[in-house]
Amino acid sequence: MQLPKGFKAAALAAQIKPSGKPDLCVVVSEKPCVWAFAGTLSTAAAPSVTRNRDLYASSVPVRALLVNAGNANAATGRGGFADNAEMAARAALELEIKATEVLTASTGIIGHRLPMQKVHKGIAALEGHFSTDFTAFSEAIMTTDLVPKRSEKVFSSGARMVGCAKGSGMIHPNMATMFAFVFSDAKVDEILLRSHFQGIVNRTFNAVTVDGDTSTSDQAMVLSSGEIETSAAEFLAALEDVMRDLAKMIARDGEGASKLLTVHVTGAASESEALETARTIAGSPLLKSAVYGNDPNWGRVIMAVGRSYTQVNYELLEVSVQGVRVFKGAPLEYDAKIVSSAMKSDEVVFEVNLGVGQARGTAWGCDLTEGYVKINAEYTT
Amino acid sequence: MQLPKGFKAAALAAQIKPSGKPDLCVVVSEKPCVWAFAGTLSTAAAPSVTRNRDLYASSVPVRALLVNAGNANAATGRGGFADNAEMAARAALELEIKATEVLTASTGIIGHRLPMQKVHKGIAALEGHFSTDFTAFSEAIMTTDLVPKRSEKVFSSGARMVGCAKGSGMIHPNMATMFAFVFSDAKVDEILLRSHFQGIVNRTFNAVTVDGDTSTSDQAMVLSSGEIETSAAEFLAALEDVMRDLAKMIARDGEGASKLLTVHVTGAASESEALETARTIAGSPLLKSAVYGNDPNWGRVIMAVGRSYTQVNYELLEVSVQGVRVFKGAPLEYDAKIVSSAMKSDEVVFEVNLGVGQARGTAWGCDLTEGYVKINAEYTT
Repeated sequence: MQLPKGFKAAALAAQIKPSGKPDLCVVVSEKPCVWAFAGTLSTAAAPSVTRNRDLYASSVPVRALLVNAGNANAATGRGGFADNAEMAARAALELEIKATEVLTASTGIIGHRLPMQKVHKGIAALEGHFSTDFTAFSEAIMTTDLVPKRSEKVFSSGARMVGCAKGSGMIHPNMATMFAFVFSDAKVDEILLRSHFQGIVNRTFNAVTVDGDTSTSDQAMVLSSGEIETSAAEFLAALEDVMRDLAKMIARDGEGASKLLTVHVTGAASESEALETARTIAGSPLLKSAVYGNDPNWGRVIMAVGRSYTQVNYELLEVSVQGVRVFKGAPLEYDAKIVSSAMKSDEVVFEVNLGVGQARGTAWGCDLTEGYVKINAEYTT
Repeated sequence: MQLPKGFKAAALAAQIKPSGKPDLCVVVSEKPCVWAFAGTLSTAAAPSVTRNRDLYASSVPVRALLVNAGNANAATGRGGFADNAEMAARAALELEIKATEVLTASTGIIGHRLPMQKVHKGIAALEGHFSTDFTAFSEAIMTTDLVPKRSEKVFSSGARMVGCAKGSGMIHPNMATMFAFVFSDAKVDEILLRSHFQGIVNRTFNAVTVDGDTSTSDQAMVLSSGEIETSAAEFLAALEDVMRDLAKMIARDGEGASKLLTVHVTGAASESEALETARTIAGSPLLKSAVYGNDPNWGRVIMAVGRSYTQVNYELLEVSVQGVRVFKGAPLEYDAKIVSSAMKSDEVVFEVNLGVGQARGTAWGCDLTEGYVKINAEYTT
């Protein structure tokens, strides 16, 4: 996958990951970019998140994003903040741009100081690895991901947008141990972009749940160099499509997952209540286990509706599993064997009508398998 | 274990559970009891919960508690409410007391109407099974529990208090797929009891988390026949001890659990923030998996602190695992092998000082194992 015009990327193995796989990468734009950003709500947010948030608040244009995987540089005390600032400054020096034009992101183990010598050596060596290909960058940001996650849109103007993401565990609203980075050469008004970005994040990355854990490092951002004129509507629609694609890829690649779990909620009092209910259902360990076992145990859907504490009319409540309606104010007769067979699919869809209003929302998750436990009991400190 | 003076119990197999194990039981008091009650906060609360809540609001004395396991009578529409009322009325008829003196509780599969013929037949047959022993009752309320959960206190006056609980999955604040029933012949002032009960529930059952799911059926209650004079302080202390014992038994018997996870939080701004933080830590799937794997991955503790959104001073934050301090404002040097060995225990204790205030709180959970997934993928509808 090629980057949009005016962008280049480099990736290499700086030996931060014990595996020796690529773990340090950068995307650079020839021109200053307008950008939008959302970061973790965790009070233990990592230095890279708080620094990017500060830059975002000051509305400076940016030109580069430097990412390391293998070490989250989180819960590392004051030293961790200094390390992060130094990482940005070094990259700026090498790229011959200002430090405030460099965004940073770190993912991996929490609570260990960054190996700064390796980081510096890696940053100095990036120069020899630049190309206009996006592939190596999108792979170097991975941690426990099994597959790289990329999405692309071409505009009618010829402008392009590419995005990549990482994340498969500690994935929960709001945000997760996830990164999503989107780059475009399409022109967009910065104020418009900023005003729409959080809403798009809410309907995409914040609608993904893998395990209910929220990380210290999550970031989603879009950088646009504005080389090519594009309609605002087309830009925002493309951005939501790319981010939704990436969000679903994260859910499908959830740690240990064997299938994608999609929950559509309609009839809600508001979009936020629809999303809240959908996420609660998609995040229920009991329902996730039932999905793994192909068990149409829709009682667990109602349990999750009940504990989402949103407005529900239980006399009108409807629940469907794989298109088969199983509850409408009361349990309906249905053939459990047929529904169970239909659940033996790589996507299981629940539809829930709360019977209250007109708002709707969708959330994505995955099944809970023995694999999740195995991965996380053995991921070593 | 014997019931307090003036109480008797009966249990039998009414064939509600497919296994044919005992599933219908009752405790009856000779005298009207003062009582206190807490039920699930789920908006999908089962008919037995809403009926008990209504009775509690009207402050009527009660004399009996009828429980069935194997069917939660939840999400059963209007018919389910009628079935529950009928169950209480039938029991009252058999016991020759008023229907408003009979509390009910149902647990098991959600979304199936109660087999009322079996229930009626069972209620009629209870008469032949009464004794002063508590054992059969405490076993008949079980569903996926591996062990019965009972606790007992003897007062200086000779009065006694016995309690039993059930629950091992769908266990999360607030309350869970859990019942806790406490009976005593010690005298207690009803207004005093009611005013303290929710606080005790908060520090005991609401501090237990197994999987983050909150059920439709949860109930905790205490009934006191008031036969024997006792000091109020002694009564309340005994009640908290019994309820804490039962709460820890529920955590230890969490579905698939191999060990008890105890989280002590100190230095919090308030008791509720301490409890919230402790529960978030004890409920983290990632930390639970690490505990299973004997991995002192304390970064996951900080991740959970961050997503509990309570007040934290990260410069003063302290974390200990099995008594070994691993973080104090920044990561500390420690021997991971020694801590990992210490975690190979049937109880793993984390201590977290938030560095803000003087309040403290404790939560209990369990590790997350392949067993949890297996149980819940296969628990059939």
